[in-house]
Amino acid sequence: MIVPCLGINDNGHLTIAGRDALALAEKYGTPAYFIDEETIRANCRAYKAALSKYAPEGSIPLYAGKALCCAAIYRIIAEEGLGADVVSAGEIATAVLAGFPMERAYFHGNAKTDSDIRYAISAGVGTFVVDNFDELSALDRIAGELGVRQRVLLRITPGIDPHTHRKIITGSVDSKFGVAIETGQAINFVREALEKKSIELCGLHCHIGSQIFEPDPFIEAASIMVEFAKSCKKEFGWEPEILNLGGGFGVRYIEDHPHINIDENIKKVCGTVASICEEAGLRVPKIFLEPGRSIVANAGVTLYTVCSVKEITGYKNYVAVDGGMTDNPRYALYSSPYTIIVANRASEPADFECTVAGRCCESGDLLAEGVKIQKCERGDILAVLCTGAYNYSMASNYNRVPRPPIVMLAQGSEYIAVERESYDDIVRLDRVR
Amino acid sequence: MIVPCLGINDNGHLTIAGRDALALAEKYGTPAYFIDEETIRANCRAYKAALSKYAPEGSIPLYAGKALCCAAIYRIIAEEGLGADVVSAGEIATAVLAGFPMERAYFHGNAKTDSDIRYAISAGVGTFVVDNFDELSALDRIAGELGVRQRVLLRITPGIDPHTHRKIITGSVDSKFGVAIETGQAINFVREALEKKSIELCGLHCHIGSQIFEPDPFIEAASIMVEFAKSCKKEFGWEPEILNLGGGFGVRYIEDHPHINIDENIKKVCGTVASICEEAGLRVPKIFLEPGRSIVANAGVTLYTVCSVKEITGYKNYVAVDGGMTDNPRYALYSSPYTIIVANRASEPADFECTVAGRCCESGDLLAEGVKIQKCERGDILAVLCTGAYNYSMASNYNRVPRPPIVMLAQGSEYIAVERESYDDIVRLDRVR
Repeated sequence: MIVPCLGINDNGHLTIAGRDALALAEKYGTPAYFIDEETIRANCRAYKAALSKYAPEGSIPLYAGKALCCAAIYRIIAEEGLGADVVSAGEIATAVLAGFPMERAYFHGNAKTDSDIRYAISAGVGTFVVDNFDELSALDRIAGELGVRQRVLLRITPGIDPHTHRKIITGSVDSKFGVAIETGQAINFVREALEKKSIELCGLHCHIGSQIFEPDPFIEAASIMVEFAKSCKKEFGWEPEILNLGGGFGVRYIEDHPHINIDENIKKVCGTVASICEEAGLRVPKIFLEPGRSIVANAGVTLYTVCSVKEITGYKNYVAVDGGMTDNPRYALYSSPYTIIVANRASEPADFECTVAGRCCESGDLLAEGVKIQKCERGDILAVLCTGAYNYSMASNYNRVPRPPIVMLAQGSEYIAVERESYDDIVRLDRVR
Repeated sequence: MIVPCLGINDNGHLTIAGRDALALAEKYGTPAYFIDEETIRANCRAYKAALSKYAPEGSIPLYAGKALCCAAIYRIIAEEGLGADVVSAGEIATAVLAGFPMERAYFHGNAKTDSDIRYAISAGVGTFVVDNFDELSALDRIAGELGVRQRVLLRITPGIDPHTHRKIITGSVDSKFGVAIETGQAINFVREALEKKSIELCGLHCHIGSQIFEPDPFIEAASIMVEFAKSCKKEFGWEPEILNLGGGFGVRYIEDHPHINIDENIKKVCGTVASICEEAGLRVPKIFLEPGRSIVANAGVTLYTVCSVKEITGYKNYVAVDGGMTDNPRYALYSSPYTIIVANRASEPADFECTVAGRCCESGDLLAEGVKIQKCERGDILAVLCTGAYNYSMASNYNRVPRPPIVMLAQGSEYIAVERESYDDIVRLDRVR
């Protein structure tokens, strides 16, 4: 199954973490996101265990909160012993609210303002991942003002182009992120960081993109980064304590996507880093990964109510639901594929080919095109699978549609992690003159 | 100028509605949306005046709130005598908050829930634009329960493919919207509507897409709709009182986009409708248009602070700002072009070719690629022009970035239409177990 916590009960209804999907829809309304806490914990453990086994002590996964950011998640990942990759003051505020140990937080981002930097230092963020020269100067200045020597990783662009969607490639030379090795700018970036009084340079970071299923691009990136670390040692006598390779591995959204063996992949990546460091005469650094999508995506299912079924004779069929790009903009942005099931007809044949459309007044508001699902009608409940990542976090109020709640399903209990927006919430910041 | 209220003052700073852009950025912070009220009013008047001149009495423009929806806008369009195209209960709630006369509201949408329908009727929404058979049955049932005979337009798909972006075409036969003439389903749609006890069928609606600069596609659509109205008269003896042709005309985002003459275009469209109705032996219906983008887009400017300037030697240049796809997802969604000016260097030559990147940890978070702007540095203020439409309304909290405020600039006064979100707002609905 794309989403491991799913089943079908005797009524032919989809079950999510052992609960009847129709009962969940009835209880919490639609649209709503349902997240299985056990799946998140299992994903955390897979990364953590593999890094413990194959990388030097202190190597940990950092959960990339941009995939799904709410206070409840930070509590879970704190309990699982992960660190956090945070990308904004808003994400930091969320982690703080959850009581996350902020020394385990790594602050990313290509456009940090002075106010962001000040806020992050005051919140006790352990380490900054500095993206560019402008940030380095601003951080040095502000840390100095606050009397702090700030731990820092530098974001380096290895110049790798993995096979993934253009919008989620991040490691090519012309990326908006980091400083490129190829242009000679990266070595100067390290030099400047080492010269700054209020900066403590602890390591290097790179990120090559999302939805990568094979270890090879990570291995290639790691090789380039180790080669670069060798130059740093030669030039400055400095070696990285941490090598942060960014990202996690890809996620299966549809049956056609490949299976991923996290343990095996991490074993290969860490093995390569160790052997090339040895060759290069470098100590083996702590290895960090930053899985976000692969921690939460397959823990999530969104339930919708079908509002209309339209058969355009000789053309195509539409199933329109009470949500769409407002709660899941991934099809509109990247044409991302999803697996969809009619929850109250889960044991019927999935032989109705259709486009699943959202409720917004916009043609691009679709959740899937040309998918096969069970034949359905107004009032049926539709389940879109694997929506734990980049759904709630990217949601909008376009068309002034309220954002759905996040319901966490745990063993023996369930709770609201984020409440449903009301119409009052929607207009709360509006002012009438 | 793309945005009519702009100028450059003696300090070489951009001015917005007569105010120094730097002073505005200082006073309200960045990013922030600034909207010139006079431009909105002028746009409203252009549509209203032309429809008054060239179409039968009672013909009005309906402001399509999805372009920019907040209470302050509904006050302005109410004062200007426009109707409102609303697409959700959230938009209805906003109009109600502003005291908008709801009998002038037209309720759109391809996926109305029972709860939406009940809410809209209770709020006194004048007319429903019914999209499909499922909605028609649900509306008839609920209106019956509430003891209302609901005024209705039917959304008909004319089967037109104007030259615009695939995601904003709405009138082709295989659109998710409406019921197609070509398949024979539209005539049955009219039959069913006429048979329903709690439905009062007042007219027909069609919409062919956005960003259409020429009147020809509207004329083509109108011709098809009049032909269809003729069939309705022949079959049922029923004639539409209203013909709603949807949309407004395109908006100039960059200098290369064509100029639009609203008066001339409306004159042509209305002239054609009148003459073909006469030929067909039909009374000339009231003509409605639904401009949204062309009412608000060119009234808006977004100000950002530059966070970093990155020159990747031999590749490309980046200017990263403190906003991006979270406040303006149009480049990420449609690769929409924008005109950009460095507000504090507005009189310097615009000879720095760069990609303007947003602050999100996502490669696709760009505002423009390969644009020429003034050479700038961290701390400078960047103005993105023509952001009044589909910016605030599509904004998200991706990366937990707070949404900017909307500041309305009126003659002799300015006021906050929507307040800036705080970090407290961001986490307000989060629950820690």
